[in-house]
Amino acid sequence: VKMTMIKAGIITASDRASKGEREDKSGLLLKDLLEGLPSEVIAYQVLPDEPEVLKKALCHIADRLGCDLILTTGGTGLGPRDHTPEVTRSVIEKEIPGIPEALRQASLKKTRFAMLLRMAAGVRQKTLIINLPGSPEAVVESFEILRPVLTHALQLIQGTAMDCKKVREKRWKAYSYPISRSLHSHF
Amino acid sequence: VKMTMIKAGIITASDRASKGEREDKSGLLLKDLLEGLPSEVIAYQVLPDEPEVLKKALCHIADRLGCDLILTTGGTGLGPRDHTPEVTRSVIEKEIPGIPEALRQASLKKTRFAMLLRMAAGVRQKTLIINLPGSPEAVVESFEILRPVLTHALQLIQGTAMDCKKVREKRWKAYSYPISRSLHSHF
Amino acid sequence: VKMTMIKAGIITASDRASKGEREDKSGLLLKDLLEGLPSEVIAYQVLPDEPEVLKKALCHIADRLGCDLILTTGGTGLGPRDHTPEVTRSVIEKEIPGIPEALRQASLKKTRFAMLLRMAAGVRQKTLIINLPGSPEAVVESFEILRPVLTHALQLIQGTAMDCKKVREKRWKAYSYPISRSLHSHF
Repeated sequence: VKMTMIKAGIITASDRASKGEREDKSGLLLKDLLEGLPSEVIAYQVLPDEPEVLKKALCHIADRLGCDLILTTGGTGLGPRDHTPEVTRSVIEKEIPGIPEALRQASLKKTRFAMLLRMAAGVRQKTLIINLPGSPEAVVESFEILRPVLTHALQLIQGTAMDCKKVREKRWKAYSYPISRSLHSHF
Repeated sequence: VKMTMIKAGIITASDRASKGEREDKSGLLLKDLLEGLPSEVIAYQVLPDEPEVLKKALCHIADRLGCDLILTTGGTGLGPRDHTPEVTRSVIEKEIPGIPEALRQASLKKTRFAMLLRMAAGVRQKTLIINLPGSPEAVVESFEILRPVLTHALQLIQGTAMDCKKVREKRWKAYSYPISRSLHSHF
Repeated sequence: VKMTMIKAGIITASDRASKGEREDKSGLLLKDLLEGLPSEVIAYQVLPDEPEVLKKALCHIADRLGCDLILTTGGTGLGPRDHTPEVTRSVIEKEIPGIPEALRQASLKKTRFAMLLRMAAGVRQKTLIINLPGSPEAVVESFEILRPVLTHALQLIQGTAMDCKKVREKRWKAYSYPISRSLHSHF
């Protein structure tokens, strides 16, 4: 089995950042965090909070660019322009409710406002898509929660994971597993 | 920006209370709790556990009466006549899974039966709708969890919230913020 | 109210176990655990991870065999052949998100990988259907969480539960701790 890097994509959903009215700190932070996994960030888009625009970008990055992982930031709140979770749910085949649940649970220890976060997460074909909140602080906190499970999650999705018992035995290595791309030939 | 009171509505879903076979303690409790926010309770309905009846009431109180917040009590269990979560999900555009999650998490510390609670919460246009359980004790407990986030949630929904950093800085004031209705002109 | 045994069904979703390539330890464990409730296991099927096969089996065991409870094991992960939660959601009328939430919450204390578990739970007519993870260890852990609420859940679904106040009053008999009644005075 040939081992290669995780191919990652980033989408920032923000009307203001997409117009250049503010810097996209959260997206740039995500780029640094992902590259430290390590992974290769092959797509990074700053988009307005338009459902159709976000949907096309998710599908393009997943299906055409063949990313293993797409992280989004922004658009997960209660505002009239927050659409990221609904768009994400419309393109995934399998939802993973435990991921946003774990992010909120960690965040609830710091602030009760965490219960208002509406992130979604799930699988589209061979691509794991996870919404993160919009603020740079929340991005860093959320990534810390996700980091230890990302590689194993991607291996499960691609059908290349070892069985769970072996994973448990080798868990101390889990942060640095490379990803098999053996099932990617059809991209 | 003109500041006014939160406009709130209450729906009690209970076959027995709607026929007058028992007093609606939970609904009356909610009225007291909401008025202490402070908010103005402009609708209070005690209805049978009929999906169509509940759906019409939610839409009327949200769309016609223009309530910022609707709290329901009852119909969130596993019984054959428990329909409140399904009805609520059918009228909201954005679900907020973290709210029932936080209510259950708090309640689980007291009783394992909390895992059976099926409340939903979400946003319909500019109206926040939250299901609470049916028992008076659960209503009081749930409201205590929600109270600190309600005003900020309503401001986010109406697009009048300060950015999150400022909210965090001023969090000590958050319990008593009045709500701007400046965006309500189209109701 | 006449008391009778719980009628239970078990479905193991596993391509390999259904072909006889490995023993179905998890399903056999569930059989022992259910019989200790006590309950009568009247259906036990080891099936491939095929959505249509799983769907027919769930409906047959619920509607034709009239089981009160169906527990499934397997097919709740992220792999290409994991379909149990989607199939379960397609046959239930009422989802109970708090059950998988409680299972994940308990499991998260042991391993962060628990956030990847995608179990669903819900009610189809008079039948409670709950997905459990696939590994024998996870089956035992999950059953321990569910055991104290199963009988009450089934009574609620069948409309034969005592009202909650009576349950609460007798709860000390089930779990041996008294409940504070201090909030009861003003109701």
